[in-house]
Amino acid sequence: MTENTSITPRGRVLSGMRPTGRLHLGNYMGALYNWVKLQHEYECYFFIADYHALTTDYADTSNLKQNIRDVALDFLSAGLDPGLCTIFIQSKVPAHFELNDLLGMITPLSWLERVPSYKDQQEQLKEKDLATFGFLGYPLLQSADILLYQPKYVPVGKDQEAHVEITREIARRFNSLYPGRFYLDANAAPWELDAVKTKARKIAKQPDKDDFNTHELVQAAHQTKLKSGYFVETILPEPEVLLTPSPKLPGTDGRKMSKSYKNTILLSDSEPEIRSKLKTMVTDPARIRREDPGNPDVCPVFDLHKVFSTEETQQKAREGCTTAGIGCIECKGWLADGVVKALAPIQERRRYFEANPAEVDAILADGATRAAARAAITMQQVRSVVGLE
Amino acid sequence: MTENTSITPRGRVLSGMRPTGRLHLGNYMGALYNWVKLQHEYECYFFIADYHALTTDYADTSNLKQNIRDVALDFLSAGLDPGLCTIFIQSKVPAHFELNDLLGMITPLSWLERVPSYKDQQEQLKEKDLATFGFLGYPLLQSADILLYQPKYVPVGKDQEAHVEITREIARRFNSLYPGRFYLDANAAPWELDAVKTKARKIAKQPDKDDFNTHELVQAAHQTKLKSGYFVETILPEPEVLLTPSPKLPGTDGRKMSKSYKNTILLSDSEPEIRSKLKTMVTDPARIRREDPGNPDVCPVFDLHKVFSTEETQQKAREGCTTAGIGCIECKGWLADGVVKALAPIQERRRYFEANPAEVDAILADGATRAAARAAITMQQVRSVVGLE
Repeated sequence: MTENTSITPRGRVLSGMRPTGRLHLGNYMGALYNWVKLQHEYECYFFIADYHALTTDYADTSNLKQNIRDVALDFLSAGLDPGLCTIFIQSKVPAHFELNDLLGMITPLSWLERVPSYKDQQEQLKEKDLATFGFLGYPLLQSADILLYQPKYVPVGKDQEAHVEITREIARRFNSLYPGRFYLDANAAPWELDAVKTKARKIAKQPDKDDFNTHELVQAAHQTKLKSGYFVETILPEPEVLLTPSPKLPGTDGRKMSKSYKNTILLSDSEPEIRSKLKTMVTDPARIRREDPGNPDVCPVFDLHKVFSTEETQQKAREGCTTAGIGCIECKGWLADGVVKALAPIQERRRYFEANPAEVDAILADGATRAAARAAITMQQVRSVVGLE
Repeated sequence: MTENTSITPRGRVLSGMRPTGRLHLGNYMGALYNWVKLQHEYECYFFIADYHALTTDYADTSNLKQNIRDVALDFLSAGLDPGLCTIFIQSKVPAHFELNDLLGMITPLSWLERVPSYKDQQEQLKEKDLATFGFLGYPLLQSADILLYQPKYVPVGKDQEAHVEITREIARRFNSLYPGRFYLDANAAPWELDAVKTKARKIAKQPDKDDFNTHELVQAAHQTKLKSGYFVETILPEPEVLLTPSPKLPGTDGRKMSKSYKNTILLSDSEPEIRSKLKTMVTDPARIRREDPGNPDVCPVFDLHKVFSTEETQQKAREGCTTAGIGCIECKGWLADGVVKALAPIQERRRYFEANPAEVDAILADGATRAAARAAITMQQVRSVVGLE
């Protein structure tokens, strides 16, 4: 029995992000903040999904290189530590493309056509021509990205669960078409494998046959009285969703913080930028005059307080707001203090990595090497069960 | 100006074949026979398209490994010479997958849906579930296979012309989205590039700008009085069809020789097999009795004479047939002599390579290395114009 290379002391975790520019507080709290914690507990692979950016932005790639660089800087600034996790650019690990093409062979078109975001995004991004093969294949590429590392968990927010579900479906289909090796339980008696093979010979009506595939062995095992059980190695285990907490994070206009709404605060914004952006942030619309008491529970500014301010400051802000003891400007100043403080270590790391670009290059190159080595283990198993070598 | 690596002394040629088992006379005369000649005139890349076999046969890959081996042996037996051409297995050159995925981003679904063979094959192979992403993407993968080598010619038969046409369309779309570098003609005066840039600065309204992309330079060149012309490097030149002669080659039942009709004579068939298969071959249906004169022009056996027999034998057969001087059995014996003689050197080489499997492995490994090196040149240019690195 060969060593099962997919069992590791720590569960493996894989996640990625499209390079669409500098990251904002929403990206940070929704993903990166959790990744930084996960790297201590799991064997983590985090990647910059440059080919995913092409699915929607193939017609204008002028910012792609800079966007990739910015995301890499944001990853490192946020605290991803190349000593603890593997950070890499998707397209530097060509196995992503091979597994994508291979999984495409077994993936029904209808599965891709019914992914909710397919029609949604075509509607939303009407100015772009998204009736392309690559855009339809987006969830498939994402599945290949994930399955290539045989991870136990994929940390995602609520809105990404559907994409992991199709990944699980594709894995199931792969495993049923190409089951891995057949094993008897470790405590099986020596004669039991012979009994299974004898049965398999009878079923096949070939008394001399000795080389059976997994389907044949499973069928024979079913019809053999075994003391112990058997199992079939799963080449592409179905990853589980690791739902990551993502607090409500409104942008300056009160809607969800999002690059497309132009309401973001970037991880790399300077203190004056942060203060000036927050100063214009919408508040409880019912609090019109300074002397009106406000309601923090409907105020977007207070949503940010919950994330970036201490309990004490939150308490103070709630009291001041509900009693009209403070104005919104004061309240926003306190929030800005919290945001600036939270971003200080991030921005310090960013200054360091901006000043040391060769170190960033080395981290990404090393990450690609490590990711490719892990991907090669999967691809060797995949090619073997598919019958490619 | 960097060296233009896509210009080579000999035109480059690329073609491939799906591994569906041992090759027959139809495969040989329709493709291999021509490839053997082309390797003397062009820089040739010939590959075994293992991933293409998966597009239709993903559900049963039990013969894939053996089929790949058989095609490799047939390639070498037919006279492809690794000293003259590059022979490799598609999936051993991962750049095929990356270029496929990249071209998928820019390829409209409708282009793939309207390829005639898409609906045709789904009809013909009803027992297989071909409503998959990979099967729809078949012509795209074929385009990537071709364009990856920036070939001048693709040698194909009449029935494959449509696939090359979509390859040309995809290349055009790529080149229009991602034009290569802008060059003034070699004899341009030194001031002409300055004039173009000055104009480009005016158009962009940025007096200090110096780094213009190709679109901007072309627009400026259009509005500048130039003594000489300019050109834009084409990253993925449109390959031309090299129509290869493929004589009419009926199988033993008179229909086109094809594996699916079970009417083939294999390159590796032994002399007794060849003689016995030809003995049952259908002839002019109007020649019922031995004493009836026959008509060679409607006789499938005579179609094979035209390919495998000498002028002299053809003359003798025609005379004997039209005068009822010979019977069909005699005529088929003469044909068998010709086929056996034509296959003798092929089968001698096959015996050599069957006895030296390590040499075949080495040839394929070396071929993959050479193909990957050539593919890397293209991919470096492609990634650069797309803005990936």
